[in-house]
Amino acid sequence: MALILQKFGGTSVATAEKIHAAAAKVIAAKTAGNQVVVVVSAMGHTTDELLDLAKEICSNPPKRELDQLLATGEQVTIALIAMALHAQGHEAISFTGGQIGLLTDNAHSKARIRDIDKKRIQTELDHGKIVIVAGFQGVTESGDVTTLGRGGSNATLVALGAVLGGVCENFTDVDGVFTADPRIVKNARKIDRISYDEMMELSSVGAGVLQTRAVEFAKKYNVPIHVRNAGHDRPGTWIVAETKAMEHVVVAGCALKKDLTRITLKNIPDRPGIVARIFTAVAEHNIVVDDIIQNVMDDNTANISFTVEHGDLADLKPVVDRLIVELGGSATYEKDLAKVSAVGVGMKQAAGVAGTMFSALAQAGINIQNISTSEIRISCTVARQDADRALQAVHAAFGLGN
Amino acid sequence: MALILQKFGGTSVATAEKIHAAAAKVIAAKTAGNQVVVVVSAMGHTTDELLDLAKEICSNPPKRELDQLLATGEQVTIALIAMALHAQGHEAISFTGGQIGLLTDNAHSKARIRDIDKKRIQTELDHGKIVIVAGFQGVTESGDVTTLGRGGSNATLVALGAVLGGVCENFTDVDGVFTADPRIVKNARKIDRISYDEMMELSSVGAGVLQTRAVEFAKKYNVPIHVRNAGHDRPGTWIVAETKAMEHVVVAGCALKKDLTRITLKNIPDRPGIVARIFTAVAEHNIVVDDIIQNVMDDNTANISFTVEHGDLADLKPVVDRLIVELGGSATYEKDLAKVSAVGVGMKQAAGVAGTMFSALAQAGINIQNISTSEIRISCTVARQDADRALQAVHAAFGLGN
Repeated sequence: MALILQKFGGTSVATAEKIHAAAAKVIAAKTAGNQVVVVVSAMGHTTDELLDLAKEICSNPPKRELDQLLATGEQVTIALIAMALHAQGHEAISFTGGQIGLLTDNAHSKARIRDIDKKRIQTELDHGKIVIVAGFQGVTESGDVTTLGRGGSNATLVALGAVLGGVCENFTDVDGVFTADPRIVKNARKIDRISYDEMMELSSVGAGVLQTRAVEFAKKYNVPIHVRNAGHDRPGTWIVAETKAMEHVVVAGCALKKDLTRITLKNIPDRPGIVARIFTAVAEHNIVVDDIIQNVMDDNTANISFTVEHGDLADLKPVVDRLIVELGGSATYEKDLAKVSAVGVGMKQAAGVAGTMFSALAQAGINIQNISTSEIRISCTVARQDADRALQAVHAAFGLGN
Repeated sequence: MALILQKFGGTSVATAEKIHAAAAKVIAAKTAGNQVVVVVSAMGHTTDELLDLAKEICSNPPKRELDQLLATGEQVTIALIAMALHAQGHEAISFTGGQIGLLTDNAHSKARIRDIDKKRIQTELDHGKIVIVAGFQGVTESGDVTTLGRGGSNATLVALGAVLGGVCENFTDVDGVFTADPRIVKNARKIDRISYDEMMELSSVGAGVLQTRAVEFAKKYNVPIHVRNAGHDRPGTWIVAETKAMEHVVVAGCALKKDLTRITLKNIPDRPGIVARIFTAVAEHNIVVDDIIQNVMDDNTANISFTVEHGDLADLKPVVDRLIVELGGSATYEKDLAKVSAVGVGMKQAAGVAGTMFSALAQAGINIQNISTSEIRISCTVARQDADRALQAVHAAFGLGN
C-alpha cells in the first residue's frame, strides 16, 4: 500500500466549504487504496490575525510566546479536517507537532526540525486511519512550542515524507511553479518538472511557492513533491531529482525578492577574524544575510556590506549597534532595494547567460547595484522601484514566456 | 514568599484592554512580594465560536477532535497574558495543560485531573517569573488533549492551588457568590463566607460561579478560594472550611437548575442488578443523573425515573435505546422541568426547613413534582415555566434578601 502525503495551505482551508473540499481530495487518495497523511496550515489569514492581536498587546512580543500563540492556528485546522473526514464517514486522527514528537531546535519563530517520532503516525495508519498533522510547528526537548517560519508547513510535509517514505502532494492556490510570478509577468508559464537545486535557488531568491529549507530536505531524502492547485485536478509542477534532459534548459525560471535593506559597516578594523565575528553575531539571531561585499580601505580599515530582508531589521539593529561599540566604525542602512534572479541547471554548460541578463536590464534603463552568482543562478540588486520591470525584462530576455 | 494563584474567566480577558487590566492585577500581586501563578480561560465567546465552527463542519464531531479544537482557546489567552506582562516589564512564561504535565483520564470533554507535575512551574517561579497556565485542559498519558468540561478552568486553578500550596483568587465578572441568581431574584445578597460543602451543593444544583468538582478538590486539599470581581478591588466571597459560626445560618443560599429532562424506563424486570446495569451504562458515557426514583409494579416489573440535563440527551438516548432492547419495557421523556434548591449547613440542626420551603411553593401556586434532599439541601422539581417564581418564593421564605 502506497503512502501519499498531502498538504493544504491556508487558502485551501480558509472556510468550512474549502475544508470539505480538501477532505474530498484526501478521501479520493484514501479510497484509491493509499495510506494518507495530511499536513495543514492555519485557516486563511489566521496567522496574520493572531500576529495583529499580539501586536495590539505588546509591540515586541517574546518569540516563545508568539510561537505558543501562532501554533493554535494549525491546531484549529487539524481538528476541523478530522471532523470533516468523520462527517464523510472516514476515520481520522489529528496531531499537533508536539504530539508526533516533531522535535526542533530552540530557535523560536525559525526553528529547524531535528527529529520526528513516526511510531504514533505509523500505528494509526496501520489501523486504517487518515492521519492529520499540524504544519509549521514543533516542540523543543523541554516541550516548548516552536514554529518553523513562514511556509514552514512545507518543511513539515517534506520531513514527514522523508521519515515515512512517500510522495508529497502540495495543494495550494496556484497551478504550480511558474517561470516568474504571473502577477508581475503576464505571459509567465507553468513549469512541468523542475530539479531540487533549481527550486531551491528560486525559493532562496523569492519564489514564494516552497520554502528553500523544505526543498533542501526533499533533495536530501529524494522525496518527490507535486505542487498543484487545490481548486482542480490538473497536474501541477513536479519537483524532482535532476535529469539529463533538464540540462538543455539554460534558464528554468526567474524570481524577485522585494524589500531588501543593505547594511554597510564602515571603517571597521581590517584584521583576520573580524568578518567571522560579525556574521557569527548576526547568525546567532537567526538572521539570513545575503550578498556580502568587503572593500579594504587605504587606512587599514574595511567596509563590509550585506543585505537582509526588511522584516529582519528590528532584530538586526541592536546586533549591529553592539558590533559598532565593540569594533569601532559606523553603520549605514540603505532601504528600498530588490533583487532579480535567473536560475537554471543548464547555466553550468552554457556561456553568455550573464551577458544576456545584464544587457536586458541595461536596455530597460535599470541600474545594477550589485551582482551575485552561484553555479546555476545570477542575481542583480536593483532599486525597489525598478523591481517589477527588471523581472519582466529578464523573463523576456531568456524567452521564458508562452 | 507566599504563593497566590489567580484565575481570570473568559469575560475578564475578552479584549486586549481587559487582558492588560488582568495583567495589572497580576503585577499588583507580584510587586506585593508574592509568587504568582495565573490560570486563564479562553477569551470571551471563543469557546462557543469554536463549537459553532465545529458544528458547521460536522453535526456530531468526535470528542477527541473537539478537545483538540477547544484547547486552542486557552492557549491563545496564555500567550497574550504573557505578552501583556512582558509589555509592562515583567517576566512571564506560559504553559498549556500538556506542558505542565496536567494528566487526566481519557474522558474527552469531561476529563478528570489525575496528576500535575509541578517541577517546571516551581523552577520558573523560583527564577522570579510569573507563570501562566491554560485552564480547562490537560493531556492523557498518550498525549491526547482533553478538556475538563464547562468551568474546567476552576478545576485547573484549585488543582494547582492544591499541588503548589497557595491561596486561590477567582476573578470573574460577578461580585461573588449570591444567596440566589441576582438576575432572577432582585434583592439577592452577596455571601461573604461560605463552606466548601454549601458551595458544592449550590454548584451541583445550579449556582454557576464554581464547578462542583473544583470545590470538591478545594475541600479535599483545604485550598481557600476567593471569588471576586475583576472589575474592582472590593472583596468577594471566600469559600473555606466550615466553621462553628456557619451552623447558625440555616439556609445560606438558593439555586435553580433549568432545562432538565426526566427519563422513565417503564415495565423493566424487577430483579437484583438491573438498576446497577442501567446506571453503569449511563455513567460509562459520563452523563450525570439525578433524582432517581424506583416504583415496583404489581406484575413484578419496575418503573425507574431519573433526570438529566437537557444537553446530555443526545448522548443518553442511544444508551436508553440499547437498554430497552436488552431489558424490555419502554422509555418516556418529560422535558421542560426545573429544580429549585435551598442549601445550608445549619439545616443539620434546624427543624421545619422542608416545611417552610414546601409552604412557600404552595402559596405561590407551584406544583412540586419531586423532592430530593441531602443533609444540607432540599430540592424540589417543578415545571420549567414556574422556575423563576419558585426561586423567588423560596429565597423570600428563608429571608435571604437584603
